[in-house]
Amino acid sequence: MTAVWTMRVAGRRERAGLARNAARRFATRTQGPGASPVQTLGKARRPGNVAPASSFAAAATKAHAVANPTLRLDTMNEHLRKMEYAVRGEVPIAAGKIQKELSQGSKKYPFDKVLLCNIGNPQAVGTPPITFYRQVLALVDSPSLLAPEHRENLSKLFTEAEIERAEELVANMPGGSGAYTDSQGTELVRKNVAQFIEDRDGYPCDPDNIFLTNGASSGIQMLLTALIADPSHAILTPVPQYPIYSALIALFNGQAEGYYLDESKQWALTTEELNRTYEDSVAKGNEPRAMVLINPGNPTGSVLSYDDLCNVVRFCYKNKLVLLADEVYQENIYTEDRPFISVKSVVEDLGLPIELASFHSTSKGFIGECGRRGGYMELCNFDEDVHAQIVKLASSGLCSNTDGQVMTDLMVRPPAPGPSRDAFFNERDAILGSMQKKALMMERFLNDIPGVSCQPLSGAMYAFPSIELPAEFVENARREGKAPDTAYALSLLRNTGICAVPGSGFNQVDGTFHLRLTILPDEESLENAMHRFREHHLELTKQN
Amino acid sequence: MTAVWTMRVAGRRERAGLARNAARRFATRTQGPGASPVQTLGKARRPGNVAPASSFAAAATKAHAVANPTLRLDTMNEHLRKMEYAVRGEVPIAAGKIQKELSQGSKKYPFDKVLLCNIGNPQAVGTPPITFYRQVLALVDSPSLLAPEHRENLSKLFTEAEIERAEELVANMPGGSGAYTDSQGTELVRKNVAQFIEDRDGYPCDPDNIFLTNGASSGIQMLLTALIADPSHAILTPVPQYPIYSALIALFNGQAEGYYLDESKQWALTTEELNRTYEDSVAKGNEPRAMVLINPGNPTGSVLSYDDLCNVVRFCYKNKLVLLADEVYQENIYTEDRPFISVKSVVEDLGLPIELASFHSTSKGFIGECGRRGGYMELCNFDEDVHAQIVKLASSGLCSNTDGQVMTDLMVRPPAPGPSRDAFFNERDAILGSMQKKALMMERFLNDIPGVSCQPLSGAMYAFPSIELPAEFVENARREGKAPDTAYALSLLRNTGICAVPGSGFNQVDGTFHLRLTILPDEESLENAMHRFREHHLELTKQN
Repeated sequence: MTAVWTMRVAGRRERAGLARNAARRFATRTQGPGASPVQTLGKARRPGNVAPASSFAAAATKAHAVANPTLRLDTMNEHLRKMEYAVRGEVPIAAGKIQKELSQGSKKYPFDKVLLCNIGNPQAVGTPPITFYRQVLALVDSPSLLAPEHRENLSKLFTEAEIERAEELVANMPGGSGAYTDSQGTELVRKNVAQFIEDRDGYPCDPDNIFLTNGASSGIQMLLTALIADPSHAILTPVPQYPIYSALIALFNGQAEGYYLDESKQWALTTEELNRTYEDSVAKGNEPRAMVLINPGNPTGSVLSYDDLCNVVRFCYKNKLVLLADEVYQENIYTEDRPFISVKSVVEDLGLPIELASFHSTSKGFIGECGRRGGYMELCNFDEDVHAQIVKLASSGLCSNTDGQVMTDLMVRPPAPGPSRDAFFNERDAILGSMQKKALMMERFLNDIPGVSCQPLSGAMYAFPSIELPAEFVENARREGKAPDTAYALSLLRNTGICAVPGSGFNQVDGTFHLRLTILPDEESLENAMHRFREHHLELTKQN
Repeated sequence: MTAVWTMRVAGRRERAGLARNAARRFATRTQGPGASPVQTLGKARRPGNVAPASSFAAAATKAHAVANPTLRLDTMNEHLRKMEYAVRGEVPIAAGKIQKELSQGSKKYPFDKVLLCNIGNPQAVGTPPITFYRQVLALVDSPSLLAPEHRENLSKLFTEAEIERAEELVANMPGGSGAYTDSQGTELVRKNVAQFIEDRDGYPCDPDNIFLTNGASSGIQMLLTALIADPSHAILTPVPQYPIYSALIALFNGQAEGYYLDESKQWALTTEELNRTYEDSVAKGNEPRAMVLINPGNPTGSVLSYDDLCNVVRFCYKNKLVLLADEVYQENIYTEDRPFISVKSVVEDLGLPIELASFHSTSKGFIGECGRRGGYMELCNFDEDVHAQIVKLASSGLCSNTDGQVMTDLMVRPPAPGPSRDAFFNERDAILGSMQKKALMMERFLNDIPGVSCQPLSGAMYAFPSIELPAEFVENARREGKAPDTAYALSLLRNTGICAVPGSGFNQVDGTFHLRLTILPDEESLENAMHRFREHHLELTKQN
């Protein structure tokens, strides 16, 4: 047996000795022989007198003040400073503080617990994970379990389908899940994603056009990095919009041009409005080069019709816009009349080739594996040199995380027929059925509150009701330098424990106010919350 | 039992019907009643005549050509275009092609297989994963296995220590590993990272200064995003250097100022050279604001002494530079005389507060979990408003992947005493012992080849020998527009199957040539490779 390895890290005592020697040499170099080492060091600590480690245990020190630091608000990247991302902004931060106060019992509130409705994070609020997915992931994570000598015991805890899928994945990930994969992601997974897309759309899909990414956010970031080459470059973004787009466009010093969805018509998207946005952008001296489409819509909950999508594709074709199709909610569809239709399928149906980037994620749907950071991006009809540049960008981050890649494979391929498949469909149906029920319930409840109005929720995971606010409330908020719906959301939080994101975080028509609430908490909590929401609203608007 | 959920996705046939209706409406809108729908659509496809899906199965179509695409090399972000990342560049790409040709049998080479020595990816070349880590990860990923009814069977496959650690992690990740965590990462893990840092250095560490990131690369990217606010902003980077720094600095349109490590003195770092670099930068009209230190060194394999580190800290303190300390190889230490000393411990020993960002990763050491994309960044002495801005940036990506966070926890906390701990130490010692042996073997072997010289390998995972090239070879390469060591690396690959990264990818003194080879393949393959390397070198330099 080899000698026990000694980790060679120099701890306090060893460094004290090294420090004494170093101080002596430094003093000699800077002040000549015989100089005393002590005076040459910064204040507070002398190497010979280093305090024993145990004396620090009790007191956690705050950061040492650096007098006039190099990195300050006024010297840092101004684009980062200007960037905003409300989904984890002021209201959720306040909610986090309240959660701490409640758990420590340091402050009293008119509620026992905070209900997080600010972020599409299903498993954090009670949605169970899909059993098959987690079981396969576990075996891929610890493939020594797949060895023949464990098979008898393993079969008591895992189904055949779970074992087979794990074996297939492990066999196709050279070095296993601990190794970096190809920069675009494991080839087997990309092939399965391509097959999923082909089956869905009826058109071929090339696995080399697929990039496995750390969530859709990561793919979006890569594409916008390539796209924005000048401060005049503009990207058309929906209003209201999931704010990752405006955040990244601000960070990359481009222009976000909002095209307004029409709330009075179920958040309809019209060519007239797209044209207006385009022309206004050009008139300002900007160069529109891309458009973002979120379908199903976040935060709106609307789903586009075939007509709508044809119009979008024609518009992009005519104006040579790169189209970013955020389709992460494609499996959250609640009504018969609005099925999910991918932008790619419409591009192919129409035969109008446009530069198209489509995004999907393992965070939403019924899978809800947000923390896994899995997902993919499909690039269609891109210039091949540009494609290679995006591969290069992906390679500088080495690869996306392998568990996310595995989850992406699971997302696009249900289990093989057998007990796992049956259980899978039962779990899926229960989750989606519940979401559909909750979406309908919230829509009705909100519409029953005077001064609150919610468009039909055909998909995604959110209700985005508009709220009429009393003029006085609006003025007060503005005087305090707050967006009125932020003030409303903070009041809602402090009085009911419900944490929602103000509409101002998503952009909206001037003078309108909204809130985004997820439909994700369990049915009972959500119904309860709706009652409290109503009470709070009536109280705030003095209708009680 | 609830009704079976129907996934509402519009397939080919349904879309054909929708398309017919859409075409009719579009024709009417644009050309008046009675217009024929067919002529108004793009060429190639008519909705009524959509070909059945099966006819595509055989032929994978290439991307449709977009005439004059919007996104081209000359219109894309020029900084992305200029960015280079050789670790997955020309030579590894060529190696990938050769691997395919070998596996398909389509071409013959003087070797059976490619030996990947280009990237620090231990588990891809035979290093086993640590059992305890993978077992715990599996249980965290499928926590239904932890239910009491499975305990008897579970105990036949998992140790008590593995089960307990998994239970602790699951209990401290609200919603489990499928949910988004806090943007800085799970609190328990950050506390454990802080404890690890305290134990190592003997100074307190605040968990709120810890960010859990998708690999160290991700943390580095966040910090550089904040730092580079103007094209004149300069970051001092080592020469030679792991090219993520130069790549990101180029991408963010900052200046990378190289400070040369002295190869003749074991890649020594001197204050004289740091001062020269700083003064030259200022003279050019740039504003140096930060410095990157990689210790242990990549690609050099050198480890800095206490003296060296004191000099670096004093230099940064004097010039108010933010210091980025890349310490991902801190557990790869092969010699007694050069223990690992963290920059933070020296900052604290000296009492010279500087803005310090320290990076660690789960990709290296003996853990080698590259694909997991785990790691952390510790920010010390940063302005608190800037700290909040970096939290905001982290929040726009929601959080780092949870399996990476779990792996980070495992990295900083060995198993509890018992069989798991014993096995853990045996596995660790075997891996590190082997790396030490291979490092020494390669160093000696390379130094034995005339015209090849390798500095002592005190740490990290690489040999970075300098290679003397015949003048004729150098001229030929330059005439072909290739860096001479790239030509050498390609020749090495095609003749021996060894894939290494040319020194030009890491920057080097003009007129010198290097290669970076990992020490990671198994001992036998590596020794074998060294023989072939020697033969190839003697042949190429006509010494045979």
